[in-house]
Amino acid sequence: MTHTRPATPLLDQIHSPVDLKPLSDAQLRQVAAELRAETISAVSETGGHLGAGLGVVELTVALHAVFDAPRDKIIWDVSHQSYPHKILTGRRDRIRTLRQKDGLSGFTKRSESPYDPFGAAHSSTSISAALGFAVARDLGGATPEGAIGDTVAIIGDGSMSAGMAFEAMNNAGALKKRLFVVLNDNEMSIAPPVGALSSYLSRLYAGAPFQELKAAAKGAVNLLPEPLREGAKRAKEMLKHMTVGGTLFEELGFSYVGPIDGHDMDQLLAVLRTVHDRATGPVLIHAITQKGKGYAPAEAARDKGHGVGKFDVLTGEQAKVKSNAPSYTSVFANALIQQAEKDSRIVAITAAMPDGTGLDKFMSRFADRCFDVGIAEQHAVTFAAGLAAGGMKPFCALYSTFLQRGYDQVVHDVAIQRLPVRFAIDRAGLVGADGATHAGAFDIGFMANLPGMVVMAAADEAELVRMVATAAHHDEGPIAFRFPRGEGVGVDIPADAQPLEIGKGRIVRTGAKVAILSFGTRLSEALVAADLLEARGIAPTVADARFAKPLDRDMILQLAATHEALITIEEGAIGGFGSHVAQLLAMEGVFDNGLRFRSMVLPDTFIDQSSPRDMYDTAHLNAADIADMALSALGVALLERRA
Amino acid sequence: MTHTRPATPLLDQIHSPVDLKPLSDAQLRQVAAELRAETISAVSETGGHLGAGLGVVELTVALHAVFDAPRDKIIWDVSHQSYPHKILTGRRDRIRTLRQKDGLSGFTKRSESPYDPFGAAHSSTSISAALGFAVARDLGGATPEGAIGDTVAIIGDGSMSAGMAFEAMNNAGALKKRLFVVLNDNEMSIAPPVGALSSYLSRLYAGAPFQELKAAAKGAVNLLPEPLREGAKRAKEMLKHMTVGGTLFEELGFSYVGPIDGHDMDQLLAVLRTVHDRATGPVLIHAITQKGKGYAPAEAARDKGHGVGKFDVLTGEQAKVKSNAPSYTSVFANALIQQAEKDSRIVAITAAMPDGTGLDKFMSRFADRCFDVGIAEQHAVTFAAGLAAGGMKPFCALYSTFLQRGYDQVVHDVAIQRLPVRFAIDRAGLVGADGATHAGAFDIGFMANLPGMVVMAAADEAELVRMVATAAHHDEGPIAFRFPRGEGVGVDIPADAQPLEIGKGRIVRTGAKVAILSFGTRLSEALVAADLLEARGIAPTVADARFAKPLDRDMILQLAATHEALITIEEGAIGGFGSHVAQLLAMEGVFDNGLRFRSMVLPDTFIDQSSPRDMYDTAHLNAADIADMALSALGVALLERRA
Repeated sequence: MTHTRPATPLLDQIHSPVDLKPLSDAQLRQVAAELRAETISAVSETGGHLGAGLGVVELTVALHAVFDAPRDKIIWDVSHQSYPHKILTGRRDRIRTLRQKDGLSGFTKRSESPYDPFGAAHSSTSISAALGFAVARDLGGATPEGAIGDTVAIIGDGSMSAGMAFEAMNNAGALKKRLFVVLNDNEMSIAPPVGALSSYLSRLYAGAPFQELKAAAKGAVNLLPEPLREGAKRAKEMLKHMTVGGTLFEELGFSYVGPIDGHDMDQLLAVLRTVHDRATGPVLIHAITQKGKGYAPAEAARDKGHGVGKFDVLTGEQAKVKSNAPSYTSVFANALIQQAEKDSRIVAITAAMPDGTGLDKFMSRFADRCFDVGIAEQHAVTFAAGLAAGGMKPFCALYSTFLQRGYDQVVHDVAIQRLPVRFAIDRAGLVGADGATHAGAFDIGFMANLPGMVVMAAADEAELVRMVATAAHHDEGPIAFRFPRGEGVGVDIPADAQPLEIGKGRIVRTGAKVAILSFGTRLSEALVAADLLEARGIAPTVADARFAKPLDRDMILQLAATHEALITIEEGAIGGFGSHVAQLLAMEGVFDNGLRFRSMVLPDTFIDQSSPRDMYDTAHLNAADIADMALSALGVALLERRA
Repeated sequence: MTHTRPATPLLDQIHSPVDLKPLSDAQLRQVAAELRAETISAVSETGGHLGAGLGVVELTVALHAVFDAPRDKIIWDVSHQSYPHKILTGRRDRIRTLRQKDGLSGFTKRSESPYDPFGAAHSSTSISAALGFAVARDLGGATPEGAIGDTVAIIGDGSMSAGMAFEAMNNAGALKKRLFVVLNDNEMSIAPPVGALSSYLSRLYAGAPFQELKAAAKGAVNLLPEPLREGAKRAKEMLKHMTVGGTLFEELGFSYVGPIDGHDMDQLLAVLRTVHDRATGPVLIHAITQKGKGYAPAEAARDKGHGVGKFDVLTGEQAKVKSNAPSYTSVFANALIQQAEKDSRIVAITAAMPDGTGLDKFMSRFADRCFDVGIAEQHAVTFAAGLAAGGMKPFCALYSTFLQRGYDQVVHDVAIQRLPVRFAIDRAGLVGADGATHAGAFDIGFMANLPGMVVMAAADEAELVRMVATAAHHDEGPIAFRFPRGEGVGVDIPADAQPLEIGKGRIVRTGAKVAILSFGTRLSEALVAADLLEARGIAPTVADARFAKPLDRDMILQLAATHEALITIEEGAIGGFGSHVAQLLAMEGVFDNGLRFRSMVLPDTFIDQSSPRDMYDTAHLNAADIADMALSALGVALLERRA
């Protein structure tokens, strides 16, 4: 795969947004063209989010030409579309380190640049943050860069469907602060769009019958660019479109301008300059863009080049990633389909991640039993609770980090009512290139503390299949199972998996002196650690807890009674499995006479992006770490590498 | 205080909604009048939520007359307005046990009645749940009552401002299932309404200029009741109003009918019968009601009789509750005002609870530095993060149970970015009459597991004042402090509180053999327990940890080293303070040679409403429980009462 760098003579002169200021509009168009080429070139070397960035190239140039960052706060929602922004704001020299250890983050990050006033990665936070800056500005607040200027949130149509964005609009519309929201409407977040808002937005630019000007355009008309407000027929036509049905936003207190063509620099510059000069309150600028714009392979891809590996710029062909085993996600999806074929009450719910959760397969097979509710985790959980109350068996498939968005609903609607919602928690643990914002670190603790909740973690893909079967059969209350990002370990998958007995673990390897009790996929490392220990003359017992709740009390107390040391390990933060084991041991008086107990959890830091292997090293959760922990607990010298 | 029961001859004949079916409209009006009197009478004896129920008396009767519960699922949002519903659905004989131990819940509750298909207490869940039932129905799902009929969600205008309701509307509008949402618009949730949506709703019935019928009423017109669609001038006028600007809901895919007078049984019955007979998709019925309607003292009250104690029906005068000390809430508010007088960067945020959090006082003093964002905890947290990034010192005051709604924002926007947001966590621990849904059980665990978060709990009101000062001075990252519902213990409040040293606890009483390490307000019980133990010849050490994160490592290790037993106690679920202490002790090898360690936490159940004292007994967190725990840890006979 060859990587020829594109010629970018004008972009080469842009070291910060201030260098854009003297440029003519024609030159800005040229910068945009070069910026697109540079973005494609960079991502071809690093992999990452391609389509989203290509969709906002012109918008990025126009925003930085009209606004004055870092004094003005430009806040990218989700921010996987921020690579062009990074290139323009002094980070071009590191852009080919994107998503790599010690490299640039794939998202905006406050610690990375003053041009990133508010980091992101989860969706729909940008308007709230921008409003915070706007209010701070008006109260005299300042940042290390000095006084605060304008605040601009750029948010996609998918992100706009999340309740949080609505909450922020509702508040911003009432506070009436000067504030800019650019609705970057590309008709897809990651998957094709869902929900009524999406249909509404489509109608705004699909030639729907429009209302009279005076009725609908009161706020926007005064903000319209002069050349568009007068004169030519084209401008009049656009004016009509601009005032079609912007009412939903106007009714929330925003002036609405749009829709405009988000790839037409003339429109963008004219509109942004006008709103910049005239706005006194909150303004929503509705820009229509195309994800993957300007790169044919991305435009042609079903996901518009959402997330790509390294690729050949000329052909768009992505480097093959060699795979030894199916991904946990696909194992989950297949297992769920298998269960659903036997039980018509099984339904599945995703929050805008049909591909990421594997439910696209389920949707193909059972179109009427699969629900993509949009970026709406709060609703997803309670909708699932309603389905369960209505006699269905809902599987709510969410990433661990996004389940945080629906936590109150898990407590209030599911757990308190003991409704049998099944939580399939994907991306549990460390996730690699997406970094700290996407880590699934906290779910064991925040689920296992709930009365009546059953919490499982799969040690491998065969166990995952058994846990899907267990969840399908468990009607007594809520149940959750977690599994990591990435591929399985390659074990055989049982053809007809049987449900597990609730609250029963298993001894995987019988030994003496020290017992390693694993919850989840660190089991394979625990077994390697056992080999390392055997080489030191200690043959440990290794057990797979399977359940953090209810605990296998008998097994755990037996392990404690028959070993000098007991080590728990999990891929989660403090307060989870190890804490439940400690509580059991404490309350049973096991510590009274001594037990060399240690609990290995994720460290008390947010771990930046890197390779998974490297992240586990950072977290001290690899085989050698486990072996060392056992040795130190026994008071024996550590492994050679660090003794 | 005398309680004369009202005469309710017709209501006396209503044992379930089926008894309403043969009644004439005139008789239904009579039932409503008697139901209102009975509701007032019942709440005068029990205390509780009065205003909300009085606002929906007619709506309750009309819904049960037109729909067919429990086959049809009537789902009350928040459900503190469900007392009239309870009276009509076979629970009149127990209505005077409301909110008492073993009595009726103050909210709907699935375990209480088949007429409560989905419990609530937090807001904005009803549309999601109703949609779940509707989808389950269409997939053949059933409940113990048999096949599922219609689903009706009744939601207030305040609840509608929460993002979750928007997410549900967005999904329902797209799925197009037959579904009824009654928007119960009384212009206030608990506090007066805030936000742009509220202004919008006001405009709907404030004679705003209206659009052409054909443009705006396409969906609703076919659903309008015949008598309103034809004939009289009044009907025409109403029709106009009915089609004014319902577009926000129509744009989300709902047919909009309204606004109608929610106290006019003729309108209610006509509209509900028509939509019941004709609707094929989702319908929103916009009913204007008056909180506290029909009871003069409630109508006149600032909060419209939102939550009342026992009262005299004739005068409306509420029984005085004798108070020994100011409430924690008011102590917090005063302390924050004091800090804000010294530091203009301090701002405060509430999510629709200015009274409940005490911020109404702050708002009076600093109108431009206090923000009520509506029922919008997700936005509240990220808005606070934006303020912090903009150089302000935001105090985000939320109940523990509602902070669950903003958990992802705490992780993603605050903790990962280390932004100095101050979380004032009110109602931490058990809360009495509001029961399990309002308990603040999980915050210690879900906050203290976050890297960089400082987590404090106040042992008494003087400590709370110190913690407000600590938070005001802590600019290095996020910080949280929790305090319970109810009044303080009566200690003197320091006039000029100094910030605490981060991560330092204090020894309150020095003893030997056993150390009791308290986190939060159980300290007073720990001291009583110490007295009980002294009477048994054991003089314990008692310490106040103050910080769950960072822990006072030196103090804790010292306590462990110098005592045979160490007992932690907190008013929170497993995974919190005790788990952090256990982790420290484990990793420091303290258990290796034996320590009688015990950790007292909330039990693994949801505790129903009762008196606080009683709930602590249930939770085994009272002085005698602590003393017993110490004695059993030491292997000594328990206190006499239970030995």
